[in-house]
Amino acid sequence: MENPVLVEVTRGPLVESRHRGAFAVVDAGGAIVASAGDVERPIYPRSAIKVFQALPLVESGAADAFGFGDAELSLACASHSGEPGHAALAASMLERAGLGPVCLECGAHWPFDPAVARDMARAGAEPTPLHNNCSGKHAGFLCTAAHLGEDIAGYVRAEHVVQRRVTAAIADVTGAVLSPDVRGTDGCSIPTYAAPLASFARGFARLAAGTGVPAERARAGRRLIEACMAQPWEMSGTGRACLRVMEAAPGRIFAKTGAEGVFCGALPEQGLGFALKIDDGATRAAESLVAALLAELVRRTEPDLAARLDALATPVLRNWEGAEVGGLCPTPAVVAAAR
Amino acid sequence: MENPVLVEVTRGPLVESRHRGAFAVVDAGGAIVASAGDVERPIYPRSAIKVFQALPLVESGAADAFGFGDAELSLACASHSGEPGHAALAASMLERAGLGPVCLECGAHWPFDPAVARDMARAGAEPTPLHNNCSGKHAGFLCTAAHLGEDIAGYVRAEHVVQRRVTAAIADVTGAVLSPDVRGTDGCSIPTYAAPLASFARGFARLAAGTGVPAERARAGRRLIEACMAQPWEMSGTGRACLRVMEAAPGRIFAKTGAEGVFCGALPEQGLGFALKIDDGATRAAESLVAALLAELVRRTEPDLAARLDALATPVLRNWEGAEVGGLCPTPAVVAAAR
Repeated sequence: MENPVLVEVTRGPLVESRHRGAFAVVDAGGAIVASAGDVERPIYPRSAIKVFQALPLVESGAADAFGFGDAELSLACASHSGEPGHAALAASMLERAGLGPVCLECGAHWPFDPAVARDMARAGAEPTPLHNNCSGKHAGFLCTAAHLGEDIAGYVRAEHVVQRRVTAAIADVTGAVLSPDVRGTDGCSIPTYAAPLASFARGFARLAAGTGVPAERARAGRRLIEACMAQPWEMSGTGRACLRVMEAAPGRIFAKTGAEGVFCGALPEQGLGFALKIDDGATRAAESLVAALLAELVRRTEPDLAARLDALATPVLRNWEGAEVGGLCPTPAVVAAAR
Repeated sequence: MENPVLVEVTRGPLVESRHRGAFAVVDAGGAIVASAGDVERPIYPRSAIKVFQALPLVESGAADAFGFGDAELSLACASHSGEPGHAALAASMLERAGLGPVCLECGAHWPFDPAVARDMARAGAEPTPLHNNCSGKHAGFLCTAAHLGEDIAGYVRAEHVVQRRVTAAIADVTGAVLSPDVRGTDGCSIPTYAAPLASFARGFARLAAGTGVPAERARAGRRLIEACMAQPWEMSGTGRACLRVMEAAPGRIFAKTGAEGVFCGALPEQGLGFALKIDDGATRAAESLVAALLAELVRRTEPDLAARLDALATPVLRNWEGAEVGGLCPTPAVVAAAR
């Protein structure tokens, strides 16, 4: 089965490039209420399920023990931009657990945002693991292990108790079987398990609606989602797509990007979870599609919000002189499938 | 017609992302000798046909009048990395024609290579139009106009004599009809005309083989292609895919990237031209595919060269700690179609 073209990139009078993909929207009862493409094909969720990976941080009592508020919990679910505030907050999380940046096993990389990276270079700085977009998630892993008195060395390995606990939580909320047969390694060295696209949408619906999972897990998930919605900059960064989508309806939309064209999220008021993947892994298309999909889900009841999301779904492409030369445009297949 | 999956991106045991596309290989007689996907679909060639756009620079006598050698001609066909040597060479081309960087209408942008951009930022510098990846091409446009005594203002506009001359040259070598109906604007503000993918392969075959075009045009095209092969760094930049592919067989492979997943080139010894486009516009897939396609075209006669190209076609993906987590892999469809 070929996934449909969901986003087109135009230039002048023609379509220049085309992005295929799939999405699933699941309700509080676990039913797929809208979908496009093959939603049973296994995909790696990558960073789009950091909320699931942060569940043990809350459930273990570590978050409360270290006095973490919305900002810290949002950073624990973040693919952040490595701005100074992100790095400082990750350092402070580690410090509260008596740990330091040297404990991080995520590796270092320059911030993805070229302007942020140039600012660092201009200041004569070099990136550390605190600037890794996943440093908040890793700080969460380490704080959980420290709180539980576990050995932290090698906490990124699939066999370590930290990752076994995280994997069990993901399997529980998604209902998917996460075996070594479907295990890859993520950019930050932890395992990422492939599962059907729809199962990730189901997991977010369960946490958002508080159904289908134990009450304590539902509370932890809801708390993390609400923290991200309250402090979306900590979960993303200046000008980022996650931030812009969540700011379109503050406190009411949760949306999280993942590498290789993935987005997951929830509309908690409607008890809906969603997941999408662009076949070719393009972030630009995933960012357009997530806004277009959310627009369709709210269009009947909130046309103004839908219009704001439509604008995010259809960015203009400009050349180096600032002239408009084309743009991204979700296809009619998105509207047809989301209805 | 759906184009086939030509490049897969793996992570662990699974394929994580898939890139569809098309390619055409054309011989000296203009016949398509190998192809995959829809090669009659119009595509914007973008920067992959800078050799065609530089034909008037040579044909007009401007290149000789200003004493341009291989380095300058290669830069005139370049999407360069904005390294100091590129910017200085573009400036010197303009200076020889009594012009300056202020004449450039391509706009300024930070070098695409993050390390080059950070080096500039670290040095307290800001990008100028000389750092635009197209500055050599624009210097060529300006030098041609200056040599012919033309007004240079607005030389990027489709109606200006500079672009009309360039467009006529492209139409001649490709055999395509280039009307305003298929005209977009490129990143550097000049027009880009869509035409069937196969027509661009045909144009490069004609220039490489010296067939099907007037002798003067064939000589100019061959001179430009040879200049690029002699000085490939000027046409690209440190570590770039064009450079690595051309260095696999110095002086014998011409390959040039274009935005949105395009590559064009030639194997002059075989009298072959080729063109490829990844549907979704992904550069990573175009870079893998161009190496894979070239490998198939030389495999029977030069297995060692084919092996070097195979290595370029299958880059390993590493995470931030340097561990191998996956890679790019051309599909069997490439081998089947290229035979």
